Amino acid sequence: MSVGPIRLSQDAHTALRPPVMARITGGFWAAKRRVNAEVSVPQGPGRLEEAGNLANLRAAAGTAEEGFTGDFPFQDSDVHKWLEAASWQLAEEHGGPAAEKLAGHVARLAALVSDAQDADGYVQTYYQARPGARRWSELHWGHELYCAGHLLQAAVAHRRATGEDGLLDVAVRFADHIDAVFGPDKAVDAVCGHPEIETALVELYRETGERRYLDLAGYFVDRRGQGTLGDSGGTGPRPGAPYWQDHIPVRDARAVAGHAVRQLYLLAGAADLAAETGDRELRDALVRLWEDMVATKTYLTGGVGSRHDLESFGDAYELPPDRAYAETCAAIASIQFSWRMALLTGDARYSDLIERILFNGFASGVSLDGERWLYVNPLQVRDGRTEGRTESHGDQEARRTPWFRCACCPPNVMRLLASLPHYMASGDAGGLQLHQYASGVYAAGGGTVRVGTGYPWEGRIAVVVDEAPAEADWTLSLRIPHWADRYEATVGGEAATERAERGWLRLRRRWRPGETVVLTLPLAPRLTRPDPRVDAVRGCAAIEHGPLVYCLEQPDQPAGLRLDGITLDTGTELVAEHRPRLLGGVTVIMARALRRAAPDGGWWPYPGAGGDIGGVGDPVRVTAIPYYAWANREAGPMRVWIPS
Amino acid sequence: MSVGPIRLSQDAHTALRPPVMARITGGFWAAKRRVNAEVSVPQGPGRLEEAGNLANLRAAAGTAEEGFTGDFPFQDSDVHKWLEAASWQLAEEHGGPAAEKLAGHVARLAALVSDAQDADGYVQTYYQARPGARRWSELHWGHELYCAGHLLQAAVAHRRATGEDGLLDVAVRFADHIDAVFGPDKAVDAVCGHPEIETALVELYRETGERRYLDLAGYFVDRRGQGTLGDSGGTGPRPGAPYWQDHIPVRDARAVAGHAVRQLYLLAGAADLAAETGDRELRDALVRLWEDMVATKTYLTGGVGSRHDLESFGDAYELPPDRAYAETCAAIASIQFSWRMALLTGDARYSDLIERILFNGFASGVSLDGERWLYVNPLQVRDGRTEGRTESHGDQEARRTPWFRCACCPPNVMRLLASLPHYMASGDAGGLQLHQYASGVYAAGGGTVRVGTGYPWEGRIAVVVDEAPAEADWTLSLRIPHWADRYEATVGGEAATERAERGWLRLRRRWRPGETVVLTLPLAPRLTRPDPRVDAVRGCAAIEHGPLVYCLEQPDQPAGLRLDGITLDTGTELVAEHRPRLLGGVTVIMARALRRAAPDGGWWPYPGAGGDIGGVGDPVRVTAIPYYAWANREAGPMRVWIPS
Repeated sequence: MSVGPIRLSQDAHTALRPPVMARITGGFWAAKRRVNAEVSVPQGPGRLEEAGNLANLRAAAGTAEEGFTGDFPFQDSDVHKWLEAASWQLAEEHGGPAAEKLAGHVARLAALVSDAQDADGYVQTYYQARPGARRWSELHWGHELYCAGHLLQAAVAHRRATGEDGLLDVAVRFADHIDAVFGPDKAVDAVCGHPEIETALVELYRETGERRYLDLAGYFVDRRGQGTLGDSGGTGPRPGAPYWQDHIPVRDARAVAGHAVRQLYLLAGAADLAAETGDRELRDALVRLWEDMVATKTYLTGGVGSRHDLESFGDAYELPPDRAYAETCAAIASIQFSWRMALLTGDARYSDLIERILFNGFASGVSLDGERWLYVNPLQVRDGRTEGRTESHGDQEARRTPWFRCACCPPNVMRLLASLPHYMASGDAGGLQLHQYASGVYAAGGGTVRVGTGYPWEGRIAVVVDEAPAEADWTLSLRIPHWADRYEATVGGEAATERAERGWLRLRRRWRPGETVVLTLPLAPRLTRPDPRVDAVRGCAAIEHGPLVYCLEQPDQPAGLRLDGITLDTGTELVAEHRPRLLGGVTVIMARALRRAAPDGGWWPYPGAGGDIGGVGDPVRVTAIPYYAWANREAGPMRVWIPS
Repeated sequence: MSVGPIRLSQDAHTALRPPVMARITGGFWAAKRRVNAEVSVPQGPGRLEEAGNLANLRAAAGTAEEGFTGDFPFQDSDVHKWLEAASWQLAEEHGGPAAEKLAGHVARLAALVSDAQDADGYVQTYYQARPGARRWSELHWGHELYCAGHLLQAAVAHRRATGEDGLLDVAVRFADHIDAVFGPDKAVDAVCGHPEIETALVELYRETGERRYLDLAGYFVDRRGQGTLGDSGGTGPRPGAPYWQDHIPVRDARAVAGHAVRQLYLLAGAADLAAETGDRELRDALVRLWEDMVATKTYLTGGVGSRHDLESFGDAYELPPDRAYAETCAAIASIQFSWRMALLTGDARYSDLIERILFNGFASGVSLDGERWLYVNPLQVRDGRTEGRTESHGDQEARRTPWFRCACCPPNVMRLLASLPHYMASGDAGGLQLHQYASGVYAAGGGTVRVGTGYPWEGRIAVVVDEAPAEADWTLSLRIPHWADRYEATVGGEAATERAERGWLRLRRRWRPGETVVLTLPLAPRLTRPDPRVDAVRGCAAIEHGPLVYCLEQPDQPAGLRLDGITLDTGTELVAEHRPRLLGGVTVIMARALRRAAPDGGWWPYPGAGGDIGGVGDPVRVTAIPYYAWANREAGPMRVWIPS
């Protein structure tokens, strides 16, 4: 069985199943994962110590003198998410001093969590270590089931990676306590303001086989949207039902709304539930909501959540590039939801979206050196930012930060990168599906393949079928990305006669071991126009290249060029050039632009303080870099959408 | 001396002085003011009672059993602002049952404030009526000097309107207490998180002649920006220095930033200070900040504050129409700042901006019937708002509300409308300046004029000079709005030979009493293009007509037309038509538009839930109404900027 976040039960009602083995061995994602493994994850325990998260666990255990520190009820979840990330990491690293050191940290932090647990199974330091604080008394803001969910996920990961039961026992005791407290005829008949427990309970069911956890997940999914949080007691912000996803039952919803991360964690949990129960009504609702999100509320980078205000989805087509919130955690949540939908339905479009998010709005969340982070991922930063920037994380969009006061994103990036191989491939009764292209080895659907590729810098993807049924037809399915207007495929050097349908090129044959498939995707740079209903980027174009969205950032432009004063020459040739020493090795795209003429008035005729807009009509060559690599040099202007 | 918010001292260093008498007798603003006087202001005491503001005053006075109710520390300021509004109202109404009733309410509420005052002069119920609350202990969020400022302004208005000293005595006692507590060598050497006391103290100085108040205002203006709020104690949100205007001293600032209302109240106070002290450095800073605001951060409607997040100014040219915050209070604050700059400098451009705000982003703040309000004034509301709207005032942009939990805007509108005549004219040693055009009588600069006009529906403005020096030249100055590309003026039927310079047409002559000047402004509808640096409305145009900005609202369009699916035909003729029974009587503008073709793809090729965009290229006639009149029918889509 595979090591990874999803391990379907034998009864699951899905079209596809996750890979039974997946390893990424080289290329783009291997490099990112190496930085994650060697820098980001090892720095985690130190960051958590500095931020007080570990002290809180000691306070709850009674082994420290001080009480709870920090501003937020959900501080523990940072520890849990780091434990999950480190566990996936451990699953790959066998032996060696780095692995031993990591194993030591994992054991230490897991023990801190275990020691903090109350006798009845409850763990959340915010309610354990603050005098007078009462459990389950402020469900709208307490994040208790949210933290519990992350603990459950960490414990499942720890068990799958190490085979040990210690942290899983902690999780099971907490889950049993929750099951004893929550329910229609129990002490608390309500949900948590931040979804997360749902997906975690389904996974705990999968890990333990205990059906009660699946039923409890079902209770939480269906109890939501009934207004149970409207007048729950206690203190904390009261931003309203959509924020905490209590405005409408999932089954009835027609549009994604409210807090983006909460919405998508909920939908991921509902997809897990549908996978295990075969609930068609729920599945149909999830398809509908996913379509609404992608068609009307997703940025070109795959990012979601267009409002800083309440970190929420906006209206349909409300997608401002400058004020995009596009939280890194929301990108991750969208991947989690989409991957569950990919397994549930078998449709390629879900992995199309995952690719777009991975290479753009997700990868932008961590610096190239793995030490600094973006919480907010805008598609535009203007020239001449003014004095008086505020210090909220919403205003840190132009520069990366070593850690956040609300540090949800960094360990979330770590756990996704550490478990990334899991998202690359799947299997079914007839074969193996490659969803993403990264050099590595993948086993699923009764076969094993080896992938070798320089993707996304090169379009050639070689797939060697190492194992396949000897005496029966077997299908290797390759996802043809939606941006690829053509492709070539050969099997054993002969052009394949099959054509892609609905995003899948299905190669069904009797395979000889070692037979090689070569898929070639056209990596020409292209200009992308926005949907005309997206008002905020009307009259603009974006540069894309394969799965990568590009942006103009100041350091790559001619000296003195003001990024806000140019217009792309739409007749321009787009020239790609690989620069191995730039930003860790990227392909840049060069284009011709014009310095825009001075403004022709606007409504205000008096001279103002707006300053010069640049020269008049001079052509200039601009150079675009992949969006994921921005904000790794000095802070300055950047834009994805360029007037044209 | 005039009745109005600003009464300069004899030593003031300003180019102009407010009118000594001003009455609006007919036309657009008279009608708005009548609704204010007959509906909005009389409803105030009931609203304040329902919302608990008056109960809080009784609690502080010890005449009620219950303690403080409500969420915000600044609840008292709603009462103070209503008292100011009602006082300006009383100044115009002499006798009659309505005036007597209003006078009774004013006396009753003023007595509640007086009774709530502590022996040492302190009044703020949030700190008086909550057990354990400590005065001056959370300056960043306590709003104590903010509430004090509104109390001072109410008291000054009450004194000027009624001649009575009662409320002024309350204000003086409070001001003396503040003066005893705050200062470089006193108990508290810091500022309040919400500016407002500055302008109020200068006015109290003007009213009482007590120089200490002017000095204290100077202290507060210059102490700000030195980080005194960074670690002030207590609870409450901590959004950072720009929010509470403590990030940079006013004198050093080069750009408006942070919370829009706080920024502009501070600048209004600084302008008052510069007016009384003649401080050139301060004046130069104010001119610079005003220019920055108007050139880069002001909406076509005159609204300011482009971010819901922290109710703040955005970056330069960050002016999204859909997510415009453009708080009604910020529009009022911008008028207050600009009027002080108009008096200080004599420049016409300040009143140009005031006119734009008054007729658009301010007038939109109150419904035509005077009973419902907008807190947020967006320039676009999309088709098909989704389920899951939150309940914050930031999401009430598409519908008006009878009152707000944070009810700063309604009494702010009331006080500006009640004192509006004050902003129409000014005087200097040589004559009278008409800044705005409303039928009425205005005395300033040694003369009196009578204005008769159907403005803004008609461009003819007749000004009769009723009084002017008999034996000397005297100058009647008429502001030529910046949008008027031409105009005609006659004096006694003869074409004037003078030409406008820098926005002023100065008619200097020996005047005969009764001589009539007729100014005719060209009221042709026009298309306005945005500054090309405003990314959010690239490729769009707006319809304007005289000082009015127009918008398309759903009820005026052909059945079934989707506002988000049209493109304005830029070759269209714009046809104006006055409709006396529509929305209280408005001139509508009709234009030709095209239903836009179905979207040509965008980046996402799969069918989504976005829905149809409308027909393909069919011409259609659309009808625009003045922006101020929107949201007075059923909630629905609206847009000012139209793709073209």
